[in-house]
Amino acid sequence: MYELIDKYKETLIKDIGKKRYEHCVRVMETAKKMAGAYGVNEQKALVAGLLHDCGRYIDEKLLLQKSKQYNILSSNSFENSKELLHANLGAYLAKHKYGIDDEDILNAIKYHTTGRENMSNLEKIIFLADYIEPNRVFEGVKEIRELCYEDLDIAMLKSLTNNILHIINNNRYLDIRTARARNYFLTKNIDLQY
Amino acid sequence: MYELIDKYKETLIKDIGKKRYEHCVRVMETAKKMAGAYGVNEQKALVAGLLHDCGRYIDEKLLLQKSKQYNILSSNSFENSKELLHANLGAYLAKHKYGIDDEDILNAIKYHTTGRENMSNLEKIIFLADYIEPNRVFEGVKEIRELCYEDLDIAMLKSLTNNILHIINNNRYLDIRTARARNYFLTKNIDLQY
Repeated sequence: MYELIDKYKETLIKDIGKKRYEHCVRVMETAKKMAGAYGVNEQKALVAGLLHDCGRYIDEKLLLQKSKQYNILSSNSFENSKELLHANLGAYLAKHKYGIDDEDILNAIKYHTTGRENMSNLEKIIFLADYIEPNRVFEGVKEIRELCYEDLDIAMLKSLTNNILHIINNNRYLDIRTARARNYFLTKNIDLQY
Repeated sequence: MYELIDKYKETLIKDIGKKRYEHCVRVMETAKKMAGAYGVNEQKALVAGLLHDCGRYIDEKLLLQKSKQYNILSSNSFENSKELLHANLGAYLAKHKYGIDDEDILNAIKYHTTGRENMSNLEKIIFLADYIEPNRVFEGVKEIRELCYEDLDIAMLKSLTNNILHIINNNRYLDIRTARARNYFLTKNIDLQY
């Protein structure tokens, strides 16, 4: 864990700032615990947790400039908010700047904000660790923290539901991957028959 | 208007029951008023309003059987709820049983439950007339009724927002067309620039 921090700390702080870097360390630690609980590769959880926000440039102009440079801007300008963009940019940087080749780690970074259908356990863990790391404070956080160690899918459903309600209530653009992910976790364990 | 009722009343009552038929008449009347307010063809609004629920068989087994027969069942069983299915079935029946050829009327029936991106004014009117017809009672209905005569797009945004909140809060499957439609009306009049 400390080796990993030594390796990436300086670059991360330079790009995303000290506060965001410290958040990444907390997500890394939370992800490691969850990985242990579910038999997921802990080293992958550490790397994905530490790098999940590596695309969240503290300089927002830089975030946009890099996204243009690497051709990851969407033609739909509402998909280019910093919330949605930094995850795609992060996956790109993790691969090309930090040298990560593992597809599961790259996907965990790419989908940590929106979620998606058919998420791997590592993807769920990074999404949830980001949501419940120790400094997060919101109504119901305690319940979701507990759920994260009981059932990943139910924790995902609950978190996505909260996210969607927050987005809709605040008149914000809803990424369709999030709507699909929530349907996926809602219906995953239900067997409807006609 | 009465000619239209004479033509379809008997079949509608047989298929969807008297109560649902009376709802259709109220939607038809509401749609006519809204069409007048926005310069939309009133005759089309009358036909689409009266027939919008023609696929909502009072016998749910029949709804499913007809949907199978006409190949409009989805491979995703959660899209085969009676709420989602009856609109697709309705558009099919409007064409093949009631002899309606007008694509705009057929689309207004098809998308009256979910909405969609790039809706025509007739589609918006049928969606909204269904939502606010005089017998509808829900918190905020008065505000939406007024909005329906002020700005169709804002009324659509408000109605879709309410629908999504209702669906999410009740742990129901969210049709992706509804999520896309809400994004569409949210972002339609905003010009983001980078």
